Amino acid sequence: MVIFGEVSIMSTVFHKIVAGEIPCHRVYEDAQVLAFLDVCPLSRGHTLVIPKQAAATLDELPEEYAAAIGRALPRICRAIMRATGATAYNVLQNNRPLAHQAVFYVHFHVIPKYQDGPGLGIGWKPQTLPQDEAKALASLIAGNVA
Amino acid sequence: MVIFGEVSIMSTVFHKIVAGEIPCHRVYEDAQVLAFLDVCPLSRGHTLVIPKQAAATLDELPEEYAAAIGRALPRICRAIMRATGATAYNVLQNNRPLAHQAVFYVHFHVIPKYQDGPGLGIGWKPQTLPQDEAKALASLIAGNVA
Repeated sequence: MVIFGEVSIMSTVFHKIVAGEIPCHRVYEDAQVLAFLDVCPLSRGHTLVIPKQAAATLDELPEEYAAAIGRALPRICRAIMRATGATAYNVLQNNRPLAHQAVFYVHFHVIPKYQDGPGLGIGWKPQTLPQDEAKALASLIAGNVA
Repeated sequence: MVIFGEVSIMSTVFHKIVAGEIPCHRVYEDAQVLAFLDVCPLSRGHTLVIPKQAAATLDELPEEYAAAIGRALPRICRAIMRATGATAYNVLQNNRPLAHQAVFYVHFHVIPKYQDGPGLGIGWKPQTLPQDEAKALASLIAGNVA
């Protein structure tokens, strides 16, 4: 663990994979991005895509690395689909424990979904959003884009 | 519906939003990306981030637009967190009906998760992945990166 002032930065397993201190089952790599198999997969081909620069959550990730992950994702998804024969898949990125983040190093899951088979389970309970509330909220969020 | 040869391209609600034919509650826009509130949100601040160039799924999205979405996501996420006070959130992108895709125009959900409150439900049933299988599968996927 490294201490900067009052902030403690845990060295996660993904820090160690990027540093080459722990092996991984690599499926893709470029200057900014590394992708490898999840060792506890939800389905065959479940892959993790991470930036080579550490950040705990997506909101903390520098634009250069966020763009590089975005750029690499379609290619990685195509390769997973070709290799596994899956046609459906979910891309999921969780931020903070309340939202199911377990490793505090930003990572995108690519999770193939198989017919009558395993994959990501999704719970979807939509709410209503009155027009006037939506207008005010959109304005509030837009005003916070920095 | 527009027919190109044997390929039929349905015009979704997102095609119409990008074309300005249907209004949206916009929170962010740049040359390649548009973000707006989901009108059936899972939680307060639930936002959709889409490319201005149409593609049904992420694997079909041109790199330029995929990179632009990646680049914009941290900024959009920060604005949503600042505006709503949420600190946890999920980013989810679904491809094909089996994986819960309902609108056939690539879109990323940014879904705030609130303490004891609404948000994305996640079902997570990990499997085991023997080392030899992982090695073979990673090699197979890597060999399919084009």
